[in-house]
Amino acid sequence: MQKDIKKLKFCYIGGGSRNWAWVFIKDLAFEKEIGGTIYLYDIDYEAAKDNEALGNKVMDANNPNQWVFKAEASLQKALQDSDFVFISILPKDFTEMMSDVHLPEKYGIYQPVGDTVGAGGLIRALRTIPMYEEIARAIKEYAPHTWVLNYTNPMSICTRTLYRIFPKIKAFGCCHEVFSTQKLLRRIVIDAGLAKENEIKRADIKTRVLGINHFTWIDRASWKNYDLFPLYSDFVKKYFESGFCLEGNWRETWFTTGNRVKMDLFKRYGIMAAAGDRHLVEFLPPSWYLKSPEMAESWQFSLTPVSWRITRRDDLKKQSADYRTGKEKLIPEDSGEEGIKQIKALLGLGDLVTNVNLPNKGQMPDFPLCAVVETNAFFSLDRVEPIITEGIPLPVRALILPHIENQEGIVQASLDRSLEEAFKVFLNDPQLKALSREDAQKLFNEMTKNTLGGEVPAYH
Amino acid sequence: MQKDIKKLKFCYIGGGSRNWAWVFIKDLAFEKEIGGTIYLYDIDYEAAKDNEALGNKVMDANNPNQWVFKAEASLQKALQDSDFVFISILPKDFTEMMSDVHLPEKYGIYQPVGDTVGAGGLIRALRTIPMYEEIARAIKEYAPHTWVLNYTNPMSICTRTLYRIFPKIKAFGCCHEVFSTQKLLRRIVIDAGLAKENEIKRADIKTRVLGINHFTWIDRASWKNYDLFPLYSDFVKKYFESGFCLEGNWRETWFTTGNRVKMDLFKRYGIMAAAGDRHLVEFLPPSWYLKSPEMAESWQFSLTPVSWRITRRDDLKKQSADYRTGKEKLIPEDSGEEGIKQIKALLGLGDLVTNVNLPNKGQMPDFPLCAVVETNAFFSLDRVEPIITEGIPLPVRALILPHIENQEGIVQASLDRSLEEAFKVFLNDPQLKALSREDAQKLFNEMTKNTLGGEVPAYH
Amino acid sequence: MQKDIKKLKFCYIGGGSRNWAWVFIKDLAFEKEIGGTIYLYDIDYEAAKDNEALGNKVMDANNPNQWVFKAEASLQKALQDSDFVFISILPKDFTEMMSDVHLPEKYGIYQPVGDTVGAGGLIRALRTIPMYEEIARAIKEYAPHTWVLNYTNPMSICTRTLYRIFPKIKAFGCCHEVFSTQKLLRRIVIDAGLAKENEIKRADIKTRVLGINHFTWIDRASWKNYDLFPLYSDFVKKYFESGFCLEGNWRETWFTTGNRVKMDLFKRYGIMAAAGDRHLVEFLPPSWYLKSPEMAESWQFSLTPVSWRITRRDDLKKQSADYRTGKEKLIPEDSGEEGIKQIKALLGLGDLVTNVNLPNKGQMPDFPLCAVVETNAFFSLDRVEPIITEGIPLPVRALILPHIENQEGIVQASLDRSLEEAFKVFLNDPQLKALSREDAQKLFNEMTKNTLGGEVPAYH
Amino acid sequence: MQKDIKKLKFCYIGGGSRNWAWVFIKDLAFEKEIGGTIYLYDIDYEAAKDNEALGNKVMDANNPNQWVFKAEASLQKALQDSDFVFISILPKDFTEMMSDVHLPEKYGIYQPVGDTVGAGGLIRALRTIPMYEEIARAIKEYAPHTWVLNYTNPMSICTRTLYRIFPKIKAFGCCHEVFSTQKLLRRIVIDAGLAKENEIKRADIKTRVLGINHFTWIDRASWKNYDLFPLYSDFVKKYFESGFCLEGNWRETWFTTGNRVKMDLFKRYGIMAAAGDRHLVEFLPPSWYLKSPEMAESWQFSLTPVSWRITRRDDLKKQSADYRTGKEKLIPEDSGEEGIKQIKALLGLGDLVTNVNLPNKGQMPDFPLCAVVETNAFFSLDRVEPIITEGIPLPVRALILPHIENQEGIVQASLDRSLEEAFKVFLNDPQLKALSREDAQKLFNEMTKNTLGGEVPAYH
Repeated sequence: MQKDIKKLKFCYIGGGSRNWAWVFIKDLAFEKEIGGTIYLYDIDYEAAKDNEALGNKVMDANNPNQWVFKAEASLQKALQDSDFVFISILPKDFTEMMSDVHLPEKYGIYQPVGDTVGAGGLIRALRTIPMYEEIARAIKEYAPHTWVLNYTNPMSICTRTLYRIFPKIKAFGCCHEVFSTQKLLRRIVIDAGLAKENEIKRADIKTRVLGINHFTWIDRASWKNYDLFPLYSDFVKKYFESGFCLEGNWRETWFTTGNRVKMDLFKRYGIMAAAGDRHLVEFLPPSWYLKSPEMAESWQFSLTPVSWRITRRDDLKKQSADYRTGKEKLIPEDSGEEGIKQIKALLGLGDLVTNVNLPNKGQMPDFPLCAVVETNAFFSLDRVEPIITEGIPLPVRALILPHIENQEGIVQASLDRSLEEAFKVFLNDPQLKALSREDAQKLFNEMTKNTLGGEVPAYH
Repeated sequence: MQKDIKKLKFCYIGGGSRNWAWVFIKDLAFEKEIGGTIYLYDIDYEAAKDNEALGNKVMDANNPNQWVFKAEASLQKALQDSDFVFISILPKDFTEMMSDVHLPEKYGIYQPVGDTVGAGGLIRALRTIPMYEEIARAIKEYAPHTWVLNYTNPMSICTRTLYRIFPKIKAFGCCHEVFSTQKLLRRIVIDAGLAKENEIKRADIKTRVLGINHFTWIDRASWKNYDLFPLYSDFVKKYFESGFCLEGNWRETWFTTGNRVKMDLFKRYGIMAAAGDRHLVEFLPPSWYLKSPEMAESWQFSLTPVSWRITRRDDLKKQSADYRTGKEKLIPEDSGEEGIKQIKALLGLGDLVTNVNLPNKGQMPDFPLCAVVETNAFFSLDRVEPIITEGIPLPVRALILPHIENQEGIVQASLDRSLEEAFKVFLNDPQLKALSREDAQKLFNEMTKNTLGGEVPAYH
Repeated sequence: MQKDIKKLKFCYIGGGSRNWAWVFIKDLAFEKEIGGTIYLYDIDYEAAKDNEALGNKVMDANNPNQWVFKAEASLQKALQDSDFVFISILPKDFTEMMSDVHLPEKYGIYQPVGDTVGAGGLIRALRTIPMYEEIARAIKEYAPHTWVLNYTNPMSICTRTLYRIFPKIKAFGCCHEVFSTQKLLRRIVIDAGLAKENEIKRADIKTRVLGINHFTWIDRASWKNYDLFPLYSDFVKKYFESGFCLEGNWRETWFTTGNRVKMDLFKRYGIMAAAGDRHLVEFLPPSWYLKSPEMAESWQFSLTPVSWRITRRDDLKKQSADYRTGKEKLIPEDSGEEGIKQIKALLGLGDLVTNVNLPNKGQMPDFPLCAVVETNAFFSLDRVEPIITEGIPLPVRALILPHIENQEGIVQASLDRSLEEAFKVFLNDPQLKALSREDAQKLFNEMTKNTLGGEVPAYH
Repeated sequence: MQKDIKKLKFCYIGGGSRNWAWVFIKDLAFEKEIGGTIYLYDIDYEAAKDNEALGNKVMDANNPNQWVFKAEASLQKALQDSDFVFISILPKDFTEMMSDVHLPEKYGIYQPVGDTVGAGGLIRALRTIPMYEEIARAIKEYAPHTWVLNYTNPMSICTRTLYRIFPKIKAFGCCHEVFSTQKLLRRIVIDAGLAKENEIKRADIKTRVLGINHFTWIDRASWKNYDLFPLYSDFVKKYFESGFCLEGNWRETWFTTGNRVKMDLFKRYGIMAAAGDRHLVEFLPPSWYLKSPEMAESWQFSLTPVSWRITRRDDLKKQSADYRTGKEKLIPEDSGEEGIKQIKALLGLGDLVTNVNLPNKGQMPDFPLCAVVETNAFFSLDRVEPIITEGIPLPVRALILPHIENQEGIVQASLDRSLEEAFKVFLNDPQLKALSREDAQKLFNEMTKNTLGGEVPAYH
């Protein structure tokens, strides 16, 4: 009755990725308890082939006879009877993301990331949802009992689409944003003299996670028998003005911030915001942190230019080739990601409690049922079960709810292939409420023309 | 077992009012099927005495031996064993309303009314909630089975407070804003040549009402077997640019508008907004209709100055004296209000379906339970039962939900006597989201200092 | 935009009926405000033809040029673009009903009706659900916007099936059982000397209806400003021992009862049961009223034998021929049924509040959402909207809930074509809980073999 | 901020118990990570003094300087600022239980336990609820932040009462009935040759727990990567006829059964019933397993006579004296109970997932919110959070729901001190539905007279 845990079939959609797929390769290089074949599916088949070569090379060197990577051009074949499916795709290319992120600047709208909410996130959603419809239908047909781990942004919207199309899908969304807050709390524990570096790991920080992806909150945090809220409160008092970078300097690394937004939100609401500042600000009225590049700077976070992403991609492409030719060697290291742990828990090899994105079945009281929310969940053999929270304080709830409505609205508009409905949603985003209706319409038209040809596409 | 419908006891809290109380006097002058005594309670006892004299004079002239008005200085005595209670109070005075409405102008915030939401509405709520706590407790003690008709603004917040303090209260909120939209629809039917002036009354227009008070919507409107949406759509096309004033000219009367906001919202969402434009705009991002007095003008609605209200009050005071001395004569006329009809339905004298404000028990699906919402309800002997709607389209829902959260938040903050929590709610209002946190704090402090002495007052 | 109310299209499924179809013919003979064509569809096409002849004959005599009856052998043609659909079918024939009602007597199970719950009702449901699936699919395809009035039993299960198959269907279930309780209350008002015979009509008795079809309750009843509960309480005290027949003698007419069960339930729970005693007892533990024919007799209700129904049918067949040949004349008389009034309200010709069966959207708090429940609803142009009750007292709720679960269970089992699941539901019915598992299995097998050929049939 | 885990204060209400209190003493004898004082409160102060002496003696011998036991006659002092409260009381004495269990036999009602549902359980509830009101009020006043572990039956009703009186209480109910099913599954794994005795512990069997206390079910069971349902299905096939006793012989030990009821329920519904057969049968129609002592015997379970409990108590009393005098020595052994583990998890010393009784916040979909249900929950520092299940199959749900309504009903009736309402609930219990109303009334009157003096008592 039980699965043969040495002969698992994984399907990786977006298997040509040089980001999450590489993390995955590295993590599997340490994994000896389970084994099997990873089918890499990508619309860029060559990229999948590159990863096949890279993956097998890493396995030969580090974990032989355990895992086989295999590029597969047919989605059906890649999916058929999979035990686990990973989805990590870039909806179209950086050309589109360039429009998503930078075009709105003409109207004074600045976006540090632009892949989740706001002008960029919503237009990206319109590109992504039809792809997810297609994927969901394929899963329903070829692998209805598989577990699906989604890594693509906009996370809530992608996961919601999977459930809209195939309500019995066993899917959840995984994101490491909360981990960075746990790392910050770990640092605070160490700095308070309660533990030494080697005595405490990120996962030892227990948190109760609340909200939606990238606009996630923590209302309980502890380490052993220490409640971490008083420590965090002291930390905020100490560092609010100066800022505090966990790794490196926020001026030098695109993804590092001074955590000043997070601290400001703690001062406002008394609970911890638990995503990177660059994501958090995109959910909030622009007048708060994002009126101008200067304002962003004063809050110590960067507006990542898409040009950097393009350069980075080209570097990685080169690095991929170097790995394959042996010019450079990929040395696996523990990524700290939890995908493999989650899979092993689902295989019965050890229970796990961690935060994931799932349809709301009551874990977020006062949030609409079925909306995709992020909270802790319990993983066991073939089970992922959300753990019920006590809800989120009302003023924060009022900030989150319109985004949940907007996410539902954009999914519905996209399923209905209605740009008219999509525009109503677009107008409701906090970033766009500051614009006149005419300007919003112009921007919307231009963005959809750039990236969708002016219509909500079907995938094929 | 049944009540003696000729010996009813009414209690009018705010019985010194020269606004709603006079409407009430006029309407009772026509009412011969029921009778009894109206106890007028007011913190301004003299004003109540004036209305006692006025009311009895009108009754003597028009409807003798049916109704007696009686000023009563003790709330307990006024309430004790009442059959019906009316609440229509001005929370403090126009001095405070001056601060509510005009102080925010310093920060670019303009309010046509300022009594429901936004800077003015929320601060007014902080004054009003403690009074309503007091009233709710008195009703619980002295007249727990009475029916309570609330007329005071902020309507949703006042009604919610009554239920928070005394969950078994039989209270509902009455507002005539929807009537004006019905009058507009009546006009459209006549202009379309379907009926003559005397063939159609306001109440013949059947509407399905949705939403919350002053941010109310209609998704079904009919007259006989005519669906009025196509007619309304034609009307909007015809008059959107020019505007359309139902009575008089919007430049000459404070309460008349060109209905351009209503028409614009129809163009946006395809359903009818059903309150006056002056109320509607206060719920929406200021960038849409309310960035400046000029913008208000372009949308053809007025920003009523409180100074006008003060002048108006003084005029009415004089008029009240003239009525009593006989210098002027109060000629009763049908107000078109429904209070008396509702009472008679509650007494078993004829069923009625009309729109009122009640705690949500499912009549607004997708809205939080217990939030005070405005929909149709069925009135019969000792029964007011909400009628279930099909909910409101999602993009409109996303506009309303944060206000519902804010209303709950301001009630909670006030019950907790916490200005700190009240400020969190204040920050979440669309009007205030455009301000920097510092400016919002300054404005909040000044407004609460002006009108509350800087703290949330207990009533006594 | 509005319908031409003189050219309506009705579709009557089960149009060969000599019961409800004749009522319909009689009621239309008085109706002059609306008009159109009634398509009679029946699997017994000849019976439909007979009713076509009969209907047209009655119209010619009483209401010429208003209505045309037309037998139609194609369901698609009968349905296509209908304005209203009526469903009133007998699932298979009286042979099957003979098995439903009388076979269980072998095991000491007695059923006065046997068409709603219990052994007979559940097996009847298994026959009916597949037919309703078929009908729902046809409506979805050929007349998705039509209004559907269901008259078939088991009412809740039939209506639920329509919504399961086509969730957007505009269907409601109509039943006159509550009317008889209203008639009883009318009688009580007259006997109390409050009104004379001609001063009060059945519909003047206002009731708040609660529960599920045939197990329906009333927690508020009034006439004008009289609360009728005290009068009813006196009535029960006076007549509990002797019984009280509203029309005729319960020993002489199958459908008349002494109302002793209704009175006993009032003594138990303090609220009025509002269906005929013969239906009520079938929902309750048999030890209460139905252990034996003698017990039924002591409670003054009859166990209608199916043989009587067969004789009656043959009489009606003869009468039908006599009507058509002119040997006998059908004299229309007001049936007191509300179908035509409901239709006219849906056409915008006058609002109406009455009790109907609809999916629960909150009108029955504490009952599962979507379960078909019976409460008051508001009818207006193209709208039927349930009115929210205050729920039903807990001990009565505990009696109703398992039936709701059973109804859902039998629908699901039937949709899944699973006799195994159907048997689990069968075992849970109060009538069958007294049996050993083995006996229940034997009875179930025999009943399904008799009437379903031992399997849950697809319709075709 | 964190607690001093060596100086905890425990309050044990019912601290004179020789059952659970001794288990507690034994378990603490092994516990060295935490320490503190256990205040033993009991209305039988002498019994508490005996346990004080016993407990301290055991600690001196096994775990010195870690724990102090202290009898305390004042509930306030025992509770004040406790960290943890345990409640394990016998509501009145075995005289009352004698009436609860054996009086109904006159009417053919047999009860193996009689402390949860049915005639005995409901009357016991009427005695217990007022005590729990008192306790809840004391906790609210003296230790509002304490964690409360309830062990008293009727479990659901006691826990519900705590929450009714003090909604913010942090209480949960603990019961080991599910453990015995886990032990049975462990045995099945061993017998299947998958593991040896020493390779598998009770807690290694992972289960998803559903339902209400003593009528608890398991819809997922696994060990490592083995799904245990196929194994259980084979087990049932093999042992259904013969029965299977886990420990000893069911004829020789009151609490051992042949598990035939459990197996029969698996055959009926396809999911595992997870309480002892003696409890399960009390929730079901008596015709299934409990019509007579002979029927009970054929299903291989015993009807424990209360006389045995009385003898057992006297033996334990003697044993207690022997322990204290040193005549006999109490040798601590691991009880297998989880109380200490739960406490340590609540202190931050290790997360835990286990099944407990908590108000429904969505963990049991389709069950009423707030009803006390039994499911898995996640324990962490100062947190117990229910884990959401997928609900229970419909036919089983229909069996459970009326009990939930009855539990709510009996709590309400008791809070209202209304025997009349309590009788309505009594009538609705499956055990009593077989009785005539008159017999039920006679039995109810006699039972309440015996044990309550014919009224619902206030505690003092």
